[in-house]
Amino acid sequence: MDSVLQQLAAVLESRKRGDPAKSYVSGLYHGGIDAILKKVGEEATETVIAAKDGDRDKIIYETADLWFHTLVMLAHCGLGPDDVLKELERRFGLSGLEEKAARRG
Amino acid sequence: MDSVLQQLAAVLESRKRGDPAKSYVSGLYHGGIDAILKKVGEEATETVIAAKDGDRDKIIYETADLWFHTLVMLAHCGLGPDDVLKELERRFGLSGLEEKAARRG
Amino acid sequence: MDSVLQQLAAVLESRKRGDPAKSYVSGLYHGGIDAILKKVGEEATETVIAAKDGDRDKIIYETADLWFHTLVMLAHCGLGPDDVLKELERRFGLSGLEEKAARRG
Amino acid sequence: MDSVLQQLAAVLESRKRGDPAKSYVSGLYHGGIDAILKKVGEEATETVIAAKDGDRDKIIYETADLWFHTLVMLAHCGLGPDDVLKELERRFGLSGLEEKAARRG
Repeated sequence: MDSVLQQLAAVLESRKRGDPAKSYVSGLYHGGIDAILKKVGEEATETVIAAKDGDRDKIIYETADLWFHTLVMLAHCGLGPDDVLKELERRFGLSGLEEKAARRG
Repeated sequence: MDSVLQQLAAVLESRKRGDPAKSYVSGLYHGGIDAILKKVGEEATETVIAAKDGDRDKIIYETADLWFHTLVMLAHCGLGPDDVLKELERRFGLSGLEEKAARRG
Repeated sequence: MDSVLQQLAAVLESRKRGDPAKSYVSGLYHGGIDAILKKVGEEATETVIAAKDGDRDKIIYETADLWFHTLVMLAHCGLGPDDVLKELERRFGLSGLEEKAARRG
Repeated sequence: MDSVLQQLAAVLESRKRGDPAKSYVSGLYHGGIDAILKKVGEEATETVIAAKDGDRDKIIYETADLWFHTLVMLAHCGLGPDDVLKELERRFGLSGLEEKAARRG
């Protein structure tokens, strides 16, 4: 549980008990899956615009926004980044997560 | 360089020298940024559809597709997952990447 | 029923009885709402890309694609362009549809 | 120039000389193509969500929003609905616009 995505997932999990009026993420959960998905669609478009501009800082910023809102979506659905990373690992025959788990074991 | 995203980034980097007729990713690079961005938009929509269905396996599958194509975009632009993870780390005051770097140092 | 959108809606309606193997639109209906919505998302992204390029011919082409696939979606849902035009008319206090209806009456 | 889309295009044209602080559309123009395209992407996602819900009123509402923002985009690029309708007419061998033009001539 030491990577950025997993730490962020832990933060997002804690926001489920937060005040929708005070926390942006708690507000998103409160708005339900539609509010979260609108942000996913919006950030995907902003990523496309940034990449068309070829502006590296904006590409990083908007991709971070996009990944962030997909993490909120995953959390809302009872899922997390490891579910997605395991799927990528499986597809590409990578060894990251299992290797880590083995080292821990 | 031990996580799934970093391993995948290394695979994507190697595909820049691949045959567009034989490798899906080499074909995407060959199509240029527009071909890659069309896939980002497409996969974002498929993620939204999967989440509206509340189908957990499909959500994982489509989010993996979306993250994957954003990684191809990043690689095409000379960027990688660490650029995005550092941005998320910075925003949320997380410690993953720097902590890891420190452990290595 | 004399405008392009209404004529097109009539064509789309007739494709509901078409062969999915022979007609693109019949194939979309056959794929269900998800197949249609994937195209809506895809064409929206292609419109964004065309507009970022500032390529007028491409903007027209991709917007036509986008409008077309929203018309397929409307038809699939038992709706048509007049439902959308009436909503726009209502919002902006325009007089097109009702005026036409009055002239016919 | 008697249909809803053409009337709306005339309204959008007049908003180019409006006050960005007072008119929503003038504000969009002022934000440039990126501000307009973000709305196109956002409304496309909201249309997808509405269609997944199968909520007819919401489908009409969100499709109106999507068409509206593509009309703003067209106006910003010096284009209009007739450019898109002519393209659809050409593709599908329809006769609406030319027929109308002939009647006028």
